[in-house]
Amino acid sequence: MGFTVIEWRGLPKIRVRNTLGNRVEEFHPLEPGIVRMYVCGPTVYDHMHIGHARTYVAFDAIKRYLQLRGYSVFHVQNITDIDDKIIRKANEEGRDWREIVDRYSKDYFEMLRSLGITVDIHPRVTDHISEIIEFIEGLIEKGHAYVAPSGSVYFDVTTYPHYGELSGRVHPEQWRQEEDVLREKRHPFDFALWKAWKPGEPYWESPWGRGRPGWHIECSVMSSRYLGEQFDIHGGGQDLVFPHHENERAQSESYFGKRPWVRYWLHTGYLTISGEKMSKSLGNIIPANEAIRKWGPRVLRLWLLSAHYRTQLDFSEEALEQARSTLARIEAAAEAVERLLAEAEPEASLRGERLEQTRSLLDAYYAFHEAMSSDFNTARALAAVMEAVRVVNRQTLPSESYTGAAIAARLFAEFNHVFNVLGKRAATEGPFEQLVELLVKVRSELRRRKMFDLADEIRSELGQLGIQLMDYPGGKTVWRLTKKD
Amino acid sequence: MGFTVIEWRGLPKIRVRNTLGNRVEEFHPLEPGIVRMYVCGPTVYDHMHIGHARTYVAFDAIKRYLQLRGYSVFHVQNITDIDDKIIRKANEEGRDWREIVDRYSKDYFEMLRSLGITVDIHPRVTDHISEIIEFIEGLIEKGHAYVAPSGSVYFDVTTYPHYGELSGRVHPEQWRQEEDVLREKRHPFDFALWKAWKPGEPYWESPWGRGRPGWHIECSVMSSRYLGEQFDIHGGGQDLVFPHHENERAQSESYFGKRPWVRYWLHTGYLTISGEKMSKSLGNIIPANEAIRKWGPRVLRLWLLSAHYRTQLDFSEEALEQARSTLARIEAAAEAVERLLAEAEPEASLRGERLEQTRSLLDAYYAFHEAMSSDFNTARALAAVMEAVRVVNRQTLPSESYTGAAIAARLFAEFNHVFNVLGKRAATEGPFEQLVELLVKVRSELRRRKMFDLADEIRSELGQLGIQLMDYPGGKTVWRLTKKD
Repeated sequence: MGFTVIEWRGLPKIRVRNTLGNRVEEFHPLEPGIVRMYVCGPTVYDHMHIGHARTYVAFDAIKRYLQLRGYSVFHVQNITDIDDKIIRKANEEGRDWREIVDRYSKDYFEMLRSLGITVDIHPRVTDHISEIIEFIEGLIEKGHAYVAPSGSVYFDVTTYPHYGELSGRVHPEQWRQEEDVLREKRHPFDFALWKAWKPGEPYWESPWGRGRPGWHIECSVMSSRYLGEQFDIHGGGQDLVFPHHENERAQSESYFGKRPWVRYWLHTGYLTISGEKMSKSLGNIIPANEAIRKWGPRVLRLWLLSAHYRTQLDFSEEALEQARSTLARIEAAAEAVERLLAEAEPEASLRGERLEQTRSLLDAYYAFHEAMSSDFNTARALAAVMEAVRVVNRQTLPSESYTGAAIAARLFAEFNHVFNVLGKRAATEGPFEQLVELLVKVRSELRRRKMFDLADEIRSELGQLGIQLMDYPGGKTVWRLTKKD
Repeated sequence: MGFTVIEWRGLPKIRVRNTLGNRVEEFHPLEPGIVRMYVCGPTVYDHMHIGHARTYVAFDAIKRYLQLRGYSVFHVQNITDIDDKIIRKANEEGRDWREIVDRYSKDYFEMLRSLGITVDIHPRVTDHISEIIEFIEGLIEKGHAYVAPSGSVYFDVTTYPHYGELSGRVHPEQWRQEEDVLREKRHPFDFALWKAWKPGEPYWESPWGRGRPGWHIECSVMSSRYLGEQFDIHGGGQDLVFPHHENERAQSESYFGKRPWVRYWLHTGYLTISGEKMSKSLGNIIPANEAIRKWGPRVLRLWLLSAHYRTQLDFSEEALEQARSTLARIEAAAEAVERLLAEAEPEASLRGERLEQTRSLLDAYYAFHEAMSSDFNTARALAAVMEAVRVVNRQTLPSESYTGAAIAARLFAEFNHVFNVLGKRAATEGPFEQLVELLVKVRSELRRRKMFDLADEIRSELGQLGIQLMDYPGGKTVWRLTKKD
């Protein structure tokens, strides 16, 4: 029979690579429909760089894909606002440590806002000192921690038999700890839960005297506080696997007496600059907000997602230029598809080229989901979208296939839900247009009154906002949006 | 132990009431992750009224909830652009039938756009005549249809043993058919697939001579064409159950030889006006676009969703006023919660009132999902949101609980994903602000130059757009958005 129908298939199951065990596992959260995700946020002692942006954009895309697949994702990302590095920076600059925290928290939030990253709860260490003390008291009571004569408290790694499993480190020499406290630890791998006060440092009162929390304890406390005693995803940069996440795991599983504390450990790969490590000594650190100003948040996001989150990603001007042109191609295709949908009507017949492109676009749609379901492989997902762009340009648009356009529109929309890189249509909605009309009217009146300076200023400022005015004989002025980027 | 954690639970399974069998069933689409939904759209021979709006908004909310729960929903809603009513209207007005179709298609699309309803494919009957003919030929070949001497083609209901199951009609006298063709039918319940041409009517050529499709065949052809031989949800108003959907089902299951053609049949209840049926003779028909202009699309949507889609919904001015005030309360709470999240920091301790409101808000969150999962009960879902509004106003805001605000924000966002009634935040983003700043600057300059008429006009026009200017001593002008609606 010649009657052709569109063959929909199911969406694939989501699988993730778990750093714990380095195995690919089917993704099943603890509670159906809900994903609890904790991502290690920054220590706010310096500007965010594009390595931070990479990690936070990666987890943002992971969250967005899980949301697309129907999970209600609760996302906690902490801010470390007390730490050796903050204290050191404050002493170097001769300022209060809180000033340092304020300055770089702003830089961090500006980056998140520009990149369109939303987080449900941003807990700060210094807001949770009493709960941290409570947690440490519990570890001491359970025999997992001890108080040193200095007033520092240490976690006793010999009481937790799974230590080292996450990072896969079995050789003690790989487990480097801070030299200066080794003398009061019982075991070289023990780590500080609470650091006794030293002159010139901020402190809080505790059952063990003045002091401040060690670095690792905050994440055990704040993640469980907002996500429950066990949760689904713990994320962060690859450099956090050891010792930070190893220590968090030891603390939490010891305190709650439940395993696993975290179901899936996900870590982002390193970011290099033209093949080199990014470091202060090489002077090649690229601040995130500078990169955003230079390339725009959408190009930067697309580039950051152009590699799978676990792999190494290399920065170069060429790679960013490539991302810019890729984005422009996707946007042009997405817009053409929307126009076709608005103007054309469903075709009577799906045969020949129209049927072929319908099938190719369905294949691209499923390839996108297969890639994202396979440990959130945004690189392969982007390739599927580019394949759809090719089919749209070569077949869907020339043959004016409404059905193809409808499938492509669905793919572009789901792609954008995850990547969040396409321009906002909102700009042409609502009072925006009316404000431009008002400015055009005011400018015409100013020209009539011969106040050309002010009229020209309006024209020029609108131009900078991407709104071009065209004057026609007889006084009519028309405006249009110029190409962005 | 005093350490308090937030207790997340799973989301409920979705259950729907299936008109076929009138049973509540667990929702499992044919293919995992994909939902194929066909909704019977309008016959475009008159203005859309609020009864149409009710049906389309109901299925829009159902689609949005399924999307929120992770299904990729492909939504087809047809336009009947050839039909007895259209021909009659054209003859009454002395116009071509295509003019009637154009005029009322525009009215329909304007309503969809205003109400924020998106549809993937809007197929039209007259674009699918050749596929309709193909489908009818197949039914004849398989022995389910016969050609009458007039050139009309009828479906033979005696060849389909499940006829009447959907509507539950077992008494032949309830199965009313068009009197004028009874003489050439073999069985009184047989219905026309193809209507032979009569002078003064539009026609298409077919193997049976000139004619046009019967009403029911289009939906069998166009639904399967875009959604596959079997699909998940078939929706429409309750008045379509018999004969329209009963006949569609007979055609499709006979043609494809697969059952069930449709997994879940969903029908919206009637809409009454102050207790009376809406009808031409009573003169109480309320055009949808008029209601949208009067109440605004967001208030109208909220009211339409304030009852469960299967129940009767009664229009009254009071009910709409009630919806307006409900919407204002939700918006105020949602905005206050956003402000709290932007300004406050996570609390160190979740105890007493703060813990209590956290639990109440989690309960409201799950009550919302339980209601929506229970045959998309938007009435109970709205009640859960209003409970959250009460907790937010009485506890979350006074105690400045960041955690409570984060949970409430999640609930309001998911509610809005489904109901789509909260004002767009987009208005405060991007060039909008810069355009207002530019207008403020131009106005200040005009005042400096003593051109108060133009300056006042800017102030007054901005006021109408909901932007209030406040002048302070020293020449500083501040703007703010005034309350919308």
